[in-house]
Amino acid sequence: MNILIIGGGGVIGQKLGRSLAARGTLRGQQISRITLADIVNPAPIPDAGVPVDCVTCNITDPASVAACLTEETDVVFLLAAIVSAHAEEDFDAGMTINMMGTLNVFQHARQLGTKPVIVFSSSIAVYGGEVPDPITDHSFLNPQTSYGAQKAIGELLLNDLSRKGYVDGRGFRLPTISVRPGKPNRAASSFMSSILREPLNGQEAICPVDEDFPHYYLSPRKCVENLIKGAEIAAQDLGQNRCMMMPGRMWTIRQLIDAMTAVAGPAPAQLIRWEAQPEIQRIVKGWRFDLRPEKALKLGLTADDSFEDNIRYYLEDDKPAG
Amino acid sequence: MNILIIGGGGVIGQKLGRSLAARGTLRGQQISRITLADIVNPAPIPDAGVPVDCVTCNITDPASVAACLTEETDVVFLLAAIVSAHAEEDFDAGMTINMMGTLNVFQHARQLGTKPVIVFSSSIAVYGGEVPDPITDHSFLNPQTSYGAQKAIGELLLNDLSRKGYVDGRGFRLPTISVRPGKPNRAASSFMSSILREPLNGQEAICPVDEDFPHYYLSPRKCVENLIKGAEIAAQDLGQNRCMMMPGRMWTIRQLIDAMTAVAGPAPAQLIRWEAQPEIQRIVKGWRFDLRPEKALKLGLTADDSFEDNIRYYLEDDKPAG
Repeated sequence: MNILIIGGGGVIGQKLGRSLAARGTLRGQQISRITLADIVNPAPIPDAGVPVDCVTCNITDPASVAACLTEETDVVFLLAAIVSAHAEEDFDAGMTINMMGTLNVFQHARQLGTKPVIVFSSSIAVYGGEVPDPITDHSFLNPQTSYGAQKAIGELLLNDLSRKGYVDGRGFRLPTISVRPGKPNRAASSFMSSILREPLNGQEAICPVDEDFPHYYLSPRKCVENLIKGAEIAAQDLGQNRCMMMPGRMWTIRQLIDAMTAVAGPAPAQLIRWEAQPEIQRIVKGWRFDLRPEKALKLGLTADDSFEDNIRYYLEDDKPAG
Repeated sequence: MNILIIGGGGVIGQKLGRSLAARGTLRGQQISRITLADIVNPAPIPDAGVPVDCVTCNITDPASVAACLTEETDVVFLLAAIVSAHAEEDFDAGMTINMMGTLNVFQHARQLGTKPVIVFSSSIAVYGGEVPDPITDHSFLNPQTSYGAQKAIGELLLNDLSRKGYVDGRGFRLPTISVRPGKPNRAASSFMSSILREPLNGQEAICPVDEDFPHYYLSPRKCVENLIKGAEIAAQDLGQNRCMMMPGRMWTIRQLIDAMTAVAGPAPAQLIRWEAQPEIQRIVKGWRFDLRPEKALKLGLTADDSFEDNIRYYLEDDKPAG
C-alpha cells in the first residue's frame, strides 16, 4: 500500500500522514510507503514506523506530478489548492492551480493505467446562491466564489474519470475546519479558527462577522478520520456520484466562543476584538450552512459530537507548548 | 451590433445566422456584421441584408479564437462542440474540444476587457444518475457522459466569469433537437431525428430503442428563437445563476411517429426499422426527460406547442426539394 499525499505539507496533509503512519494499514493492507508532496518540501513525520518520503511537487507542472505519482501509487490524497480569498483575488492563480493543477493530477493518474484510488478534497464552497435550503445530496452546486467553482469542476472531472473506469475517485466537500492549528491563511474562513486558536494561545484575534453568523464546521481530527474512511469505502458502495458532503455541524460564532469558555474558562473570549470586514463577510455569507450529508453518514463518515470536542482536540493535538 | 457564431457551420449555427440576418437587429441595435466561424469554413448566408463573414476557427487554438473574437465583438454564440457519442468514444477529443476549447473562448473573451455577451449551448446531458425527478432549476448536475460533464464544466466557468464581471454569460441546456435536418451525426441522439427525417424524405431509418422510450425535445426553429431571446435577456434578470434549461417537451418515440403520421400520412412510419442498439440505449437511458424549466419559461423562452409543429417546421424549413 503505497500512498501519496499531495498537499502533504499543509495542516490536514501533515495530520493525515501522521495518522496513516500510526495506523500502519489502509484498505486492509500494510502501508509500504507514504510520500508527502507539496509546493515546498513538507516536514517529515517524526518516529514514523513506515518509510516516508518528503518531496516537492508543483501540480501545475505535469512532469512534476509524474515524478511523484507513479505506477507504484495505490492511493492518492489530493489536498493541494490555493484557498478561497486567494483564488478570489487572483483569478488566474486559482484557475492554474485549483482547476488545471487538479486536472493534471487526474489525467496523469488516468494515463498510468493502474486505476489508483483518488481521494479529492472538495469544499462546501461549491454551494451557494439561489438554491433552497436544506442543501441535500441532490442540491445544485452553485458556487459564489472562484474557489468553489474550481472545486466543483474537480468533482465533475473526478466523477467522469471514475465512471469511465480510469481512476477510482471519491471526493468530499470539507466543512470549514476548526480549530485549525498554525497561522492564519488567505482563506476567507481563516478567522473561524483564529478567534479560538489565538485566544487559546493567549493572543488577541479579530472577528470580522457578527456573533450570530452560522456556519458548518468540522475538527481537523475528524476530517482526517473521514478522509481515511473515504479512501476505504468500497467502490461499489459509492454509487454513480463519487463526490459528497463530508459531515460537519452548524454552529454560530457565539456557540464556538461558548464552547471555548466551557472548556478553557472565560479568559480567552476576552481576547476577541469585533471588527466588521465587508469583503470577508461578502464571501462567507455566500456560503451555506444548512447541509444534510446523508450519503456520507450512511457510508460511515461522522461529524464532531460537540464543539467542546473541537476545542479539546486543539488543546490535545495542536496547542503550542508553553 | 457585431455578432460571432462559433459553430456557425452547424445546423443550429446556420439557422441562427439566417434568422439574425433576417431580423437585422439584436438587443435593440442594428446588426452591423455577422461572423460565422467553424472548424471548416461555414456556408454563407444567402441574400443576407447585413455583412456576413465566414471564417475557420479552431477553438482548441487560442490564436485562432483571438482572430475571430475581437474587441469589436458584442455577442458571441458558442455552439461548437463534439457530440455525445463522439466524446464518449474519444475521451481526449472531448476534453480538448468541449472543455479546453470552451475555456479558450471564455478566457479570451475575458481578456478582451469588453465584457461581451456570451450565449453558451449547454445540454440536458448535464442531468443524470441518482437525482430524484422532476429535474428542477435546483437539481444537481450529475452527467453520465463525458459530453455532459464537459458541458457542466462550461456552465461553471461561464457562471464564474460572469459573477466576476469579466463577461455577460448566459447558458442554455438544449433539449434534443428534432427534427434536425441534414445527415445523421455521432450524437447518441441522432436517431431521434433520423427516424422522422429519413422517412419524410422517403428513406429507411433505424430506431435503436423501444417505442415507449421517453425523451425531451425541441424543434430547431424554437431553439434558434430561444437562443436569440437568451441573448436579449437583461443581465439583471438572469440572477446569480446564468445557466438554465431551455424549454422543451417530453414525448415518447410512439408520439413522435404518430405526429409524423398525423401531418404526413401513414407511409413514412412504414420506413422505420426497429433494431435494438445496446450502446446507444446505455447512453440515452442515462438522460433525463422529466424536466421543469421554470426559470427559462419565466424569462420568456418557449417550447413547441405540439410535435406536429416540429414535423411541419421540418417540412417548411428543411425538407430537401424533390
